[in-house]
Amino acid sequence: MGRACLSVPPRSTRCLRALRCSLSRVTCDRSLPLSFFLIPCPMTPQRAPSIRGVLVVLLLFCFLNVQALKSQLLSRLSAANAPVANGVSYVTKYFDQKIDHFGFLEDGTFKQRYLVNDDHWHQIGGPILFYTGNEGDITWFCNNTGFMWDVAEELGAMLVFAEHRYYGESLPFGKESYSSLKHLNYLTSEQALADFAVLILHLKATVPGATKSPVVAIGGSYGGMLSAWMRMKYPHLVVGALAASAPIWQFTNMTSCGVFYKIVTNDFTRHGLDCSVSIRKSWSSVDNVSSTDDGLTWLSNEFSMCSPLKKQDMQMFKAWLQETWVNLAMVNYPYEANFLQPLPRWPIQVVCTHLRNASLPDRLLLQAISHAVRVYYNYTGEAACLDISQTATGNLGYLGWYYQACTEMVMPMCTDGVQDMFEPQPWDFQAFSEECYKQFGVRPRIDWAITMYGGKQIHSHSNIIFSNGKLDPWSGGGVMESLTSSLVAIVIPDGAHHLDLRYNTNYDPSSVLHARALEVKYIQQWIKEAAEMT
Amino acid sequence: MGRACLSVPPRSTRCLRALRCSLSRVTCDRSLPLSFFLIPCPMTPQRAPSIRGVLVVLLLFCFLNVQALKSQLLSRLSAANAPVANGVSYVTKYFDQKIDHFGFLEDGTFKQRYLVNDDHWHQIGGPILFYTGNEGDITWFCNNTGFMWDVAEELGAMLVFAEHRYYGESLPFGKESYSSLKHLNYLTSEQALADFAVLILHLKATVPGATKSPVVAIGGSYGGMLSAWMRMKYPHLVVGALAASAPIWQFTNMTSCGVFYKIVTNDFTRHGLDCSVSIRKSWSSVDNVSSTDDGLTWLSNEFSMCSPLKKQDMQMFKAWLQETWVNLAMVNYPYEANFLQPLPRWPIQVVCTHLRNASLPDRLLLQAISHAVRVYYNYTGEAACLDISQTATGNLGYLGWYYQACTEMVMPMCTDGVQDMFEPQPWDFQAFSEECYKQFGVRPRIDWAITMYGGKQIHSHSNIIFSNGKLDPWSGGGVMESLTSSLVAIVIPDGAHHLDLRYNTNYDPSSVLHARALEVKYIQQWIKEAAEMT
Repeated sequence: MGRACLSVPPRSTRCLRALRCSLSRVTCDRSLPLSFFLIPCPMTPQRAPSIRGVLVVLLLFCFLNVQALKSQLLSRLSAANAPVANGVSYVTKYFDQKIDHFGFLEDGTFKQRYLVNDDHWHQIGGPILFYTGNEGDITWFCNNTGFMWDVAEELGAMLVFAEHRYYGESLPFGKESYSSLKHLNYLTSEQALADFAVLILHLKATVPGATKSPVVAIGGSYGGMLSAWMRMKYPHLVVGALAASAPIWQFTNMTSCGVFYKIVTNDFTRHGLDCSVSIRKSWSSVDNVSSTDDGLTWLSNEFSMCSPLKKQDMQMFKAWLQETWVNLAMVNYPYEANFLQPLPRWPIQVVCTHLRNASLPDRLLLQAISHAVRVYYNYTGEAACLDISQTATGNLGYLGWYYQACTEMVMPMCTDGVQDMFEPQPWDFQAFSEECYKQFGVRPRIDWAITMYGGKQIHSHSNIIFSNGKLDPWSGGGVMESLTSSLVAIVIPDGAHHLDLRYNTNYDPSSVLHARALEVKYIQQWIKEAAEMT
Repeated sequence: MGRACLSVPPRSTRCLRALRCSLSRVTCDRSLPLSFFLIPCPMTPQRAPSIRGVLVVLLLFCFLNVQALKSQLLSRLSAANAPVANGVSYVTKYFDQKIDHFGFLEDGTFKQRYLVNDDHWHQIGGPILFYTGNEGDITWFCNNTGFMWDVAEELGAMLVFAEHRYYGESLPFGKESYSSLKHLNYLTSEQALADFAVLILHLKATVPGATKSPVVAIGGSYGGMLSAWMRMKYPHLVVGALAASAPIWQFTNMTSCGVFYKIVTNDFTRHGLDCSVSIRKSWSSVDNVSSTDDGLTWLSNEFSMCSPLKKQDMQMFKAWLQETWVNLAMVNYPYEANFLQPLPRWPIQVVCTHLRNASLPDRLLLQAISHAVRVYYNYTGEAACLDISQTATGNLGYLGWYYQACTEMVMPMCTDGVQDMFEPQPWDFQAFSEECYKQFGVRPRIDWAITMYGGKQIHSHSNIIFSNGKLDPWSGGGVMESLTSSLVAIVIPDGAHHLDLRYNTNYDPSSVLHARALEVKYIQQWIKEAAEMT
């Protein structure tokens, strides 16, 4: 018996919420200590916050945005425009995984959660589409990877969604998983890939008819990176990988640290130069206006703040604005969507209708910004006030990703205020490293991901689709040109963050429909080749 | 400035010797708790020895044989027949490696030793032949991989010999490296491969002219497995691999557990059926003769034992005989060689001249066996007596391999006395696991090596030569047929254990000369293709 797809309050969320609640709100500047995976946080080197400070900055800065993103990615499309999850169901299962695949001192196991749907599976030997879960609750990814549900029947495929260790319910040490470095030590991409490998073998060994089933890895964002790496490291277990919006090159010396925010900026500029210039100018307008008590009061009223802004809130306020623009760029989808804050179709286009005159004086400019921001936070008109520390239901495990970013997933981010519309914030690895040490007692290994996963020298691999939307800021660190005949880049001009992995809708641009069709064609080809091999 | 190739008393040897000396000799049967890599030790399930017992059995049984093998592999050919190491020199270097590549709790480093010779290197961009060190002192492998020295000039290659962690001088925790499971925890093939990966990148980054040097992995035996796996897991770092006598399929359910001893037996049978039948019959003759005190005395005299044999020594005595035959099969080389015990060319042929009548009664049969054994232990006639607990200088880290066999390198071995000439000893994983647990507190992960390295599903990889000698018992677990046009098997009918990696000699059969020429051809092709890619 299956279980409805939309459900399950994730255990990790409660855990993180508890952690968050234990921290009092403090003054913070825009020093952004770490990049959260889906939310890049450039940092200023001027400040070395305390552990508590770092965590609070993280929580107040990143959490906001991550949660906002979460809410967007979490959402289903509105009933009018998109398929509803009716009939989508899965069985929730748990598998005993070794906590440490790479050592024998720690011999314990934990329950890895995974979801299975075999409604359309062609037993015996039909393919398995295996979602390589990323930094969040797997039920959330189940809900947001409509592509797999859409193509299951055509491919005769079983669907499996495997949760990434340390996220959702798959906690190696239960509530203690995040309590110390000792417990966090097994949170790495290598361990996660090994989990997937062991789980795939388990499925093949135990599901009747699956012994010879070809497995295709599918994932988006960090999950897309894992899919690509799964094919690279375990090609004997997956016949190919669809790596959607996977910035596998967003590492040191591989991609300019400024490209992410440059793409964000371009997403606004394409709806009028004044749109991005207005935002670029807004930072000094905020500084100017907030320099007086009167200005602060005006700003609080203009933005309908739930709590009056204070001087010490202003870095936070600007960070909140910045992340709003970033989030909009990532989820700039072609259809109205019911996110935590419902958004119109092509939301940036709507935002930019409010930002058509960059020459306005400070207060008028900020008034326009205020209207623009409300597209994101109050599209329905139901929000009584806006809250720069607001949160949302959490399906992404931000603290887990924060640890991963502090260890092996070091993705430099920066802004210069010239090529992008943000205040200049250089990338400073040393300061980053210091903050990671203060936070977790770890030092990031800046070269490790490249050493392990090959950087740009990946030509000898095969059967990987790298799909990227050109509107997606993460496409800057993605593979945008085919490397060989079987390492294929699919670029979706009108796509934001892994749009291709979402359900088909009537509003999809032809480019994403074409991409999905091509993806299915390649997957069919891999399956056919695998069958010929056996 | 280089240093002469033959030198360096390995630190690990002293450590192991100290350990060994701390144990008193005890009675043991032929229960063989673990397979040492180069010395397979099948086990009987009837006995569950104590920790001390297990270790002693290991030491007395495996050590003998390993040491004997060591001495053989260690040896240089005699001056008359083979090249001498004159002029072979290298620079010894040390590189700071992370103790744990796969976690961040343990952030310490250790000095990994590696040896470099660039006499023939074509700077800029000339190739690097990179020996992926196995379970022993790297200087020993340096001395015993004449192939690399022979081809360096032709290829314009730099030679690098990288020591495997936990062996030789590359001890992550110095003298404490073997003191507890906590310290042993980082002894895995994955960590060793990561060491090689990081070292290769270090060389490319720091050696002037090496940035674009194509690297070819080369190794024999377990080192050959590492070479193959290096190409599979880090194809961005090595353009290809020569995996000599690498039994990558000697794992559970991939190769019959009896194949190893069957090949050993065949090596004797080919010099006359009576040869192997004599050995098969000898076990009951030993039992019969040793059942009386008179018989024991006779046996002690006949074998010129240094210490009179006692009833409780008889399992050990038989194990000692068995390992003699195994060692002979592995190093059945076509030239006279000065091993620890000097051996004639084609030593099994000489052994079998003593075993031409399998119908002899017990004492006469054992007399023949005694003569045969002396080919191995007393070819020069200088040994005053034979010692079943004798050891040799140690370059192989047997305790390290013992741990690896107890964790991820689980290689089942068995005998049935029908297809082979040994006493029946079934493979019993459960008993094996129990003994590992008693010894180290670890449980072997029987499927892990297959999960990680792909078992027989390795077709998607490329540029690996699997060379095997048909005389080599390890060839049973090797890749004996080409899998694709770039996963090439080279079979050397007259070859024992990685004969192709040894120096060219006038006595080499044409099959090994042909193999070496083919290997060079493939390596040149990989280098050429790499140059075309950049």
